Amino acid sequence: MDYARTRQDSLTKPQGSLGKLEELSIFMAGWQGKEHPRLNQISCLVFAGNHGVTAQGISAYPPAVTKQMVQNFENGGAAINQLCIAAGAKLRVISLDLDHPTADFTKAPAMSEEELCRALQTGADAVPDDCDCLLLGEMGIGNTTAAAALSLALFGGDSGQWTGRGTGLAKDKLAHKAEVVETAVRRHSPEISDSFELLRCLGGRELAAIAGAVIAARQYRTPVLLDGFISTAAAAALTISAPDILDHCQVSHLSVEPGHRHLIETLGKSPILQLDMRLGEASGAAVALMILRASLATYNGMASFEEAHVSRSLQ
Amino acid sequence: MDYARTRQDSLTKPQGSLGKLEELSIFMAGWQGKEHPRLNQISCLVFAGNHGVTAQGISAYPPAVTKQMVQNFENGGAAINQLCIAAGAKLRVISLDLDHPTADFTKAPAMSEEELCRALQTGADAVPDDCDCLLLGEMGIGNTTAAAALSLALFGGDSGQWTGRGTGLAKDKLAHKAEVVETAVRRHSPEISDSFELLRCLGGRELAAIAGAVIAARQYRTPVLLDGFISTAAAAALTISAPDILDHCQVSHLSVEPGHRHLIETLGKSPILQLDMRLGEASGAAVALMILRASLATYNGMASFEEAHVSRSLQ
Repeated sequence: MDYARTRQDSLTKPQGSLGKLEELSIFMAGWQGKEHPRLNQISCLVFAGNHGVTAQGISAYPPAVTKQMVQNFENGGAAINQLCIAAGAKLRVISLDLDHPTADFTKAPAMSEEELCRALQTGADAVPDDCDCLLLGEMGIGNTTAAAALSLALFGGDSGQWTGRGTGLAKDKLAHKAEVVETAVRRHSPEISDSFELLRCLGGRELAAIAGAVIAARQYRTPVLLDGFISTAAAAALTISAPDILDHCQVSHLSVEPGHRHLIETLGKSPILQLDMRLGEASGAAVALMILRASLATYNGMASFEEAHVSRSLQ
Repeated sequence: MDYARTRQDSLTKPQGSLGKLEELSIFMAGWQGKEHPRLNQISCLVFAGNHGVTAQGISAYPPAVTKQMVQNFENGGAAINQLCIAAGAKLRVISLDLDHPTADFTKAPAMSEEELCRALQTGADAVPDDCDCLLLGEMGIGNTTAAAALSLALFGGDSGQWTGRGTGLAKDKLAHKAEVVETAVRRHSPEISDSFELLRCLGGRELAAIAGAVIAARQYRTPVLLDGFISTAAAAALTISAPDILDHCQVSHLSVEPGHRHLIETLGKSPILQLDMRLGEASGAAVALMILRASLATYNGMASFEEAHVSRSLQ
């Protein structure tokens, strides 16, 4: 990172004038451990899961859509298919036992220990050991409710501040969704003392898989682009047990889902993009990959003041 | 635009969930007049000019840097070279009489009528009649002072609110820069009644060229990505004579230069990116082109609910 900072300050531009592009190059150099970080092999993982809490009427879409959208991913028809082609990432979609939704966490823990471990392991195993950047996203009708529950259990506050319209829940059902989140957290929170119990009781399989992938990426020192609210909440669950576990992760974009801003700020992160997106599927991560490419293109390719014979600042 | 809106609402995602990406596709379809807008031929024009007002000590860099940076562009060593390659745009750098700076506009109009016309025409002539999107940017030591003067003359307020550190002016020289802007505007403003007089008295050759290019692009119905503060101010000068002249233009990013936010808001625009950039050279426009590519990739490539057999919202 020191090398990258020094190099940035030698390039033909006022120091700092590429803003976030400069920061990202320093981040990439540090985690890849390379003077000239690269973006050749990019893996985009989209995990899909189903949620028993949909029985509480917290989503605008029926749970069957999770499987239908996975089919759409496989046929190449979804947003993330187009964005991975445009940004240069290899997409892999991983379904987690879609025919068996997690338990309704207003009534019981979402998963057994065995189910949780399997989901974590699936996530970790999906991470290649040689990719230059990992994009993480999800699909799962009902999973903004799980993300809100994780966030409330993690950081407290009012359940309404973590709850939003997800795929487009009617405004008059928002208070009900907040109540569902509140009920779930009140039920499980007293027993939760670590990250894995939190994911087990209030998460879902795709959220646990994201957490597993974040851990595996850390072992490989692979930089991660987290997508939106759900991906960030899943990763945030890990901070109870290891506060600096997300240092190798960037938050790709600020989601319209209102809890995301508060979650990002609480984690001390700053999103790369703010495009009023709220789709999931790693769509924000794929767009942010384009910004990473801009960052490394300038960092790796620009001439220095000396090389270009450009005069430096008078001051 | 109606067609594009209807198509967006048929694609496999909650309506509106791609946010700015959806808006941009509708904008592109409208201006290109195509059901499936495209981004095959992209022209990035960077105009360079020198400014007599540098005699007032308003820049951190010596005026010689304008020419040195043009050389750097031609050698492929600048940020915009790398960003045009990464984003897929064809870069053209156009120097406007660099050996003859404009007059110091604290003492006289920056240009004669003939000089202004030549600069406007150079800008207009540089726009290809067949490109799918036009990126406009600039290089010119001293030109944030010109942009601040244009903005103050256009929209009033306090000269300090339009004045920033440009390439990195020392903080203790900011008040002086604001005074220079104030003096220039007080001198010329009473005589200015149209866009061209404004550009002639308080602009510069590269700013006039940008204005000329904006007009030519409008004649071709070519969508434009304006870069940062200087490009936006140059284009904004046209709004005195034709209030809707910037409808075919997007503001690429919100610059760190503090006047930019106020300028964008006053124009009723919303920037595509906020990356804390302040370099110029069309660097923000080239990065925003990547977002346009993401927009059209999803709009043109996604399957509809019907095609993909995905259930629609329950509500």
